[in-house]
Amino acid sequence: MTGTLFLIGTGPGNPEQMTPEAAHAVEKAEEFFGYFPYLDRLLLRGDQRKIASDNREELDRASAALTRAATGINVAVVSGGDPGVFAMAAAVCEAIEKGPAAWRDIEIVVTPGVTAMLAVAARAGAPLGHDFCAISLSDNLKPWEVITRRLKLVAEAGLVIALYNPISKARPWQLGKAFEILREVLPGTVPVIFGRAAGRPDERITVMPLAEADPGVADMATCVMIGSPETRIIARPNLPDLVYTPRFYAGDSH
Amino acid sequence: MTGTLFLIGTGPGNPEQMTPEAAHAVEKAEEFFGYFPYLDRLLLRGDQRKIASDNREELDRASAALTRAATGINVAVVSGGDPGVFAMAAAVCEAIEKGPAAWRDIEIVVTPGVTAMLAVAARAGAPLGHDFCAISLSDNLKPWEVITRRLKLVAEAGLVIALYNPISKARPWQLGKAFEILREVLPGTVPVIFGRAAGRPDERITVMPLAEADPGVADMATCVMIGSPETRIIARPNLPDLVYTPRFYAGDSH
Repeated sequence: MTGTLFLIGTGPGNPEQMTPEAAHAVEKAEEFFGYFPYLDRLLLRGDQRKIASDNREELDRASAALTRAATGINVAVVSGGDPGVFAMAAAVCEAIEKGPAAWRDIEIVVTPGVTAMLAVAARAGAPLGHDFCAISLSDNLKPWEVITRRLKLVAEAGLVIALYNPISKARPWQLGKAFEILREVLPGTVPVIFGRAAGRPDERITVMPLAEADPGVADMATCVMIGSPETRIIARPNLPDLVYTPRFYAGDSH
Repeated sequence: MTGTLFLIGTGPGNPEQMTPEAAHAVEKAEEFFGYFPYLDRLLLRGDQRKIASDNREELDRASAALTRAATGINVAVVSGGDPGVFAMAAAVCEAIEKGPAAWRDIEIVVTPGVTAMLAVAARAGAPLGHDFCAISLSDNLKPWEVITRRLKLVAEAGLVIALYNPISKARPWQLGKAFEILREVLPGTVPVIFGRAAGRPDERITVMPLAEADPGVADMATCVMIGSPETRIIARPNLPDLVYTPRFYAGDSH
């Protein structure tokens, strides 16, 4: 009898934004695998065990969790946000595909969560109110030329763009280069939202036009969102601006 | 003193997938505006009032809610999924932009939620494990030529594509046409996921290759997801297949 492997999304970090379904999966699991800041978000019982690892070791972590589940233990693999968006669900699938046949008998239960771009959008207004995309800027995962090509195509398509993994110590120049690429296709006036730690006490939401977008505003905890030519800003005298993308496409008429 | 306007996302429909933050916002509001099936998901107190409307009346509904909030009442505008994704948050922003100046003083609180594509992805494996986009197929909201152009560009970009509003009685042919357009760019082998009512008792997840994708499988409660050339299927003898998009881009090497 194998155990169940739960893929749990904690949401953006505010416990109020984690679903009851995910909380119940936490109760059912005996061992927890994840990047340590995500594991630290969970309140576990004394009989539950944390196995923390670094954020570059996804495939090893997935294999370790599957190995334990195969012995009959209920395990949880924990991601921030949603486990299916640039997170551990794909790593667990990859490990299953490459691993022993017995791993294909392990029940996999994914509990979806609020992914970063949704939390940031909620704080800014409704920037994802029409067609949008999510692109990881990490060139550890794909060649930079592929990223460049994707950015050009989605900007030409008029989609709002959410950038995950925008910057890190090892990848300091990619976000600035992405802004350069996007400025060649998009008007300099489209709003760029830097959404840091949305919903958490250290939240910081910054909006500036693409022409002036400063990559230095972003850090590893930031989701960067670039509006489409349709995206609008509503100035409010006593409250922060609202950034939104209308439901209806206006095209050249506005 | 104006009231607060809460934009609440109920998640995909399973109460276990609605965040505590959204549930607390429900407790704070006195009047609830929304499409009636979404309002029916809420358990309200006797002193709380529902104002249900049809799903074509978003701007009127937003204006009605803002009018009440301006008089000092705490109101909730309710969407399924996430209020920021093809839902009421953009309609409320639009109403504020077009409405009386006083509406710019109303505090707007958006509680993000699990949007349909995340719930469907969770049931299928990890199809959104790498770059993806969300496109509404409704040509009530933008010209069909814009939709055609966007589909071609995002397919060329290699993004996984989640289609919202894929089909309705008034829009019966658009999904079949979308599949035709995508077949011109993508291999016929890429998996298409029809995710109906994910997480609810009437859930039905169907996977078929793009070459054979049948628009008749979709209804209004379905989110349709088209894989990228990178998306893979893991056959499992005793469990449903897993569909996932690897974290690493393999390109022509696989």
